[in-house]
Amino acid sequence: MTVQLETVSSNKSFEGTLTKYKFKSAALGGLHAQFNLFLPAIASKHKVPVLFYLAGLTCTEDNGAQKGGFLGVAATQGIALLFPDTSPRGAGIAGEDDDWDFGTGAGFYVNATHPKFSNNYNMLTHVTLELPQVIEAAGLPIDFKRQSVMGHSMGGHGALTMYLASQTKQFRSASAFAPIANPTKCPWGEKAFGGYLQGGTEEAKATYDATELIAKHKDPAHILIDYGTGDNFYKQGQLLPENFLKAARDAGYDEVQVRVRSQEDYDHSYFFISTFASDHVHFHANFLKA
Amino acid sequence: MTVQLETVSSNKSFEGTLTKYKFKSAALGGLHAQFNLFLPAIASKHKVPVLFYLAGLTCTEDNGAQKGGFLGVAATQGIALLFPDTSPRGAGIAGEDDDWDFGTGAGFYVNATHPKFSNNYNMLTHVTLELPQVIEAAGLPIDFKRQSVMGHSMGGHGALTMYLASQTKQFRSASAFAPIANPTKCPWGEKAFGGYLQGGTEEAKATYDATELIAKHKDPAHILIDYGTGDNFYKQGQLLPENFLKAARDAGYDEVQVRVRSQEDYDHSYFFISTFASDHVHFHANFLKA
Repeated sequence: MTVQLETVSSNKSFEGTLTKYKFKSAALGGLHAQFNLFLPAIASKHKVPVLFYLAGLTCTEDNGAQKGGFLGVAATQGIALLFPDTSPRGAGIAGEDDDWDFGTGAGFYVNATHPKFSNNYNMLTHVTLELPQVIEAAGLPIDFKRQSVMGHSMGGHGALTMYLASQTKQFRSASAFAPIANPTKCPWGEKAFGGYLQGGTEEAKATYDATELIAKHKDPAHILIDYGTGDNFYKQGQLLPENFLKAARDAGYDEVQVRVRSQEDYDHSYFFISTFASDHVHFHANFLKA
Repeated sequence: MTVQLETVSSNKSFEGTLTKYKFKSAALGGLHAQFNLFLPAIASKHKVPVLFYLAGLTCTEDNGAQKGGFLGVAATQGIALLFPDTSPRGAGIAGEDDDWDFGTGAGFYVNATHPKFSNNYNMLTHVTLELPQVIEAAGLPIDFKRQSVMGHSMGGHGALTMYLASQTKQFRSASAFAPIANPTKCPWGEKAFGGYLQGGTEEAKATYDATELIAKHKDPAHILIDYGTGDNFYKQGQLLPENFLKAARDAGYDEVQVRVRSQEDYDHSYFFISTFASDHVHFHANFLKA
């Protein structure tokens, strides 16, 4: 089956081009999905590596592209940026639009196993398999042998778990801004997994909890995490980066392999993300350009 | 009369702080006005110069702060950024919310002389006099002897006209992204001046048209303008930077004093602005830090 990629919009930025595409997503049950792809200017000459940015609760494919501050440094580094959406849109499932932290805008980067959601809420497959296939099939100049992933909040959870759980070692490195780092132990995660997964948080532990995953991880790791001490969601125990850090150290990962930085007084906003955007792109460049 | 500045929100960014303030604005007829102020970290040690950013049609005090990409370079340069709103809000004037290019979100940085608008639509006074007074009175660490101004589209018009028409030489330098550079000759300007000013475009020529002003200007000028050749509003003749450039050259200003750069394929969006944000802050730093 050939997937038709439709161009929704295109903007030149930092000598490269940010393009919004739309297509009918099989992974999301035939719904239309949108994503943004930034190609640096050098991509007109040769294929470039790609860095995924997974956004947080309530966001779309636009937030990271518009407010993250990633495009300039990615342009300089010659790295493409892929901004997926955060959930299916318009599945028409009862209740999916009732809460800001579940359903629409809150796909949690899982493949749902609960029958109510399993036809549409497959963001794991959508992001890790379908988007690369669709982009490759369209002939866009991405070298998918070189992929890394970063994300914010729910998207930080997505980035860390996709990196650690991938059997194929799809991503060379992972980073996160204020990630939900131990979701089976926080209200957001309990709600999401309780809804999307038949087995709830117990089922989630095997593949969808970064702290559980790093505890059992054996391979070398390349992980960078930033969180702010002024982040109200951190204070409320939704993020739990300290649990992830302890599990990583207990598993033998040192600061070179798993670096978790506490940033004084920064909050959960894109003003925090943009401050450290350059650090994260440079971190991934070490591995994407190796 | 003491004006109470109320803090709406505060976000740490690039080691500095972006704060949104609210106050009862006399210039806007007693309505509440909001603005964002970014203070670099060094402002905790000594007063810093300030660079105004005036946003375009439909925007608020947030667009430039969130999407402009100015904060990082302003932090490095030790320059404060002031982001005013683009119009009064909630004046309750019949028709003010009917169009996106007139009324709410479209104050055009004039002081209205038409009786229907003159009580509220005084963005020129609000931006150039009231905001500095209110900020100074609040004891915030801005050195108002060092001010420069930049803006986008309608805000580029605002920046250029405030710079060129100021009797007090309030601003040391001006820059603009895709400015409405000859508003008495374009539909947006004709509509705005026709509504806000009793004398319409004829009245506007004396103080509210950058092309008219540069033609008669005698003092040295420090002006930088960028516009994109892929900008639909440029193509439609709303911006007319070529008129401004010709008037400047005819008046004897060379490329050092008035630089107008045509940027190939860039459009009217914040993806264009953020690409050249660093250039503009560095341009103003030459004068603000002299």
